[in-house]
Amino acid sequence: MPGAPSGALRPRATRRDDAGMADDLVLYGNDTLSSPYVFSVFVTLEEKKVPFRFETLSLSKKEHERPAYAVPSYTGRVPALRHGDFWLAESSAIDEYVDEAFPPPAHPRLYPEDVRERARVRMIQAFLRSDLLALRHERSTASFFEQEPVKPFTPEGKASAERLVRIASRFLPEGASFVAGRFTPADADLALMLQRLVANADPCPDRLAQYARAVFARPSVRKWLSRTKWKDR
Amino acid sequence: MPGAPSGALRPRATRRDDAGMADDLVLYGNDTLSSPYVFSVFVTLEEKKVPFRFETLSLSKKEHERPAYAVPSYTGRVPALRHGDFWLAESSAIDEYVDEAFPPPAHPRLYPEDVRERARVRMIQAFLRSDLLALRHERSTASFFEQEPVKPFTPEGKASAERLVRIASRFLPEGASFVAGRFTPADADLALMLQRLVANADPCPDRLAQYARAVFARPSVRKWLSRTKWKDR
Repeated sequence: MPGAPSGALRPRATRRDDAGMADDLVLYGNDTLSSPYVFSVFVTLEEKKVPFRFETLSLSKKEHERPAYAVPSYTGRVPALRHGDFWLAESSAIDEYVDEAFPPPAHPRLYPEDVRERARVRMIQAFLRSDLLALRHERSTASFFEQEPVKPFTPEGKASAERLVRIASRFLPEGASFVAGRFTPADADLALMLQRLVANADPCPDRLAQYARAVFARPSVRKWLSRTKWKDR
Repeated sequence: MPGAPSGALRPRATRRDDAGMADDLVLYGNDTLSSPYVFSVFVTLEEKKVPFRFETLSLSKKEHERPAYAVPSYTGRVPALRHGDFWLAESSAIDEYVDEAFPPPAHPRLYPEDVRERARVRMIQAFLRSDLLALRHERSTASFFEQEPVKPFTPEGKASAERLVRIASRFLPEGASFVAGRFTPADADLALMLQRLVANADPCPDRLAQYARAVFARPSVRKWLSRTKWKDR
């Protein structure tokens, strides 16, 4: 199916100045900016220095269930990417697509060239999307993007937080600034997961907290944060 | 960390005849063969025609929590792959690693060369790992790998089943045998998800049922099924 009738999806669109190519590449997210997966793609696009348009849907108004979005995006979830009339869903697939569709030297390469390093990056992205449910539930992104208050951890939440710390300490090599040598989309994802602890003043080893803060200081991430109620801590 | 002390993990090991290289490549799964993610990697390794050893852990005996497995596998979950002393977790990352680490012409290429086709395959794998929870819960793999009885769908389960049918109909192009031209790991994953309906005689359009049956007729899948109580339907 070709690109959706775009008018219906543009009420809250944010047009960027670099409009020529931007019309060809559209990231769809939700208007509350609560999705760590939309965050992942937004940061990836910024890091790639690819002009894109960011359009937001109101999930409470069920805009994602309208056929103009639900059909071409396959899943009706956010994020989705439209590149010309090619649509793609699922953030990790989109991150890799963007990296491959806009190769060096015009754009920086984000996923490592080395097969094993690249595999590690994919492992980390997949792990962060399929585990740590209690932590994600008890320390939602609204706690730092919207400054909503949190409750003390349940035993499950605490165990999940400790699991993150234990595993992240092994994902991030000692003394390293990134999980695979230089910035990759897995760093955006892992830093956001760690911020569930850091930004809420929950226990987190210094080394991991500093890593999360450094990733969140990147211009690509600041661009996202400037749209939210984020406060540095 | 180098390879785990292997003795502790080998009680239920299945040695293959091609032992020379097999010692270098080990897939860790759970002994009940209930994991669709271990299935995904098993089928991928078979399709690649890479000799490997399949070792199973008893999750009920918490063998996956022993440091010899939990530490090198990062997450302590199954599947994990050990290639020499390189360990990797998360099935979709392992599938891609195996494809890249054993390239043509010695081994068939599984992920498409075309950037957009490859992206679609990744999207499908990610979708099947992050959605359809009610269906996965109400039609567990035990219903066909162990012949355990199922209950009628709850409204959530029914909605989840209908969602699968709706989206799978768009993932699989009309008239196609595979989601991306020829067999990919996404076909193993999608066929297994569809078998939750087909093998339990739940409603499923003919076209999708025939696709699922054809994928399950592949020698790679039969090898897995022969270890279970699977019955063709």
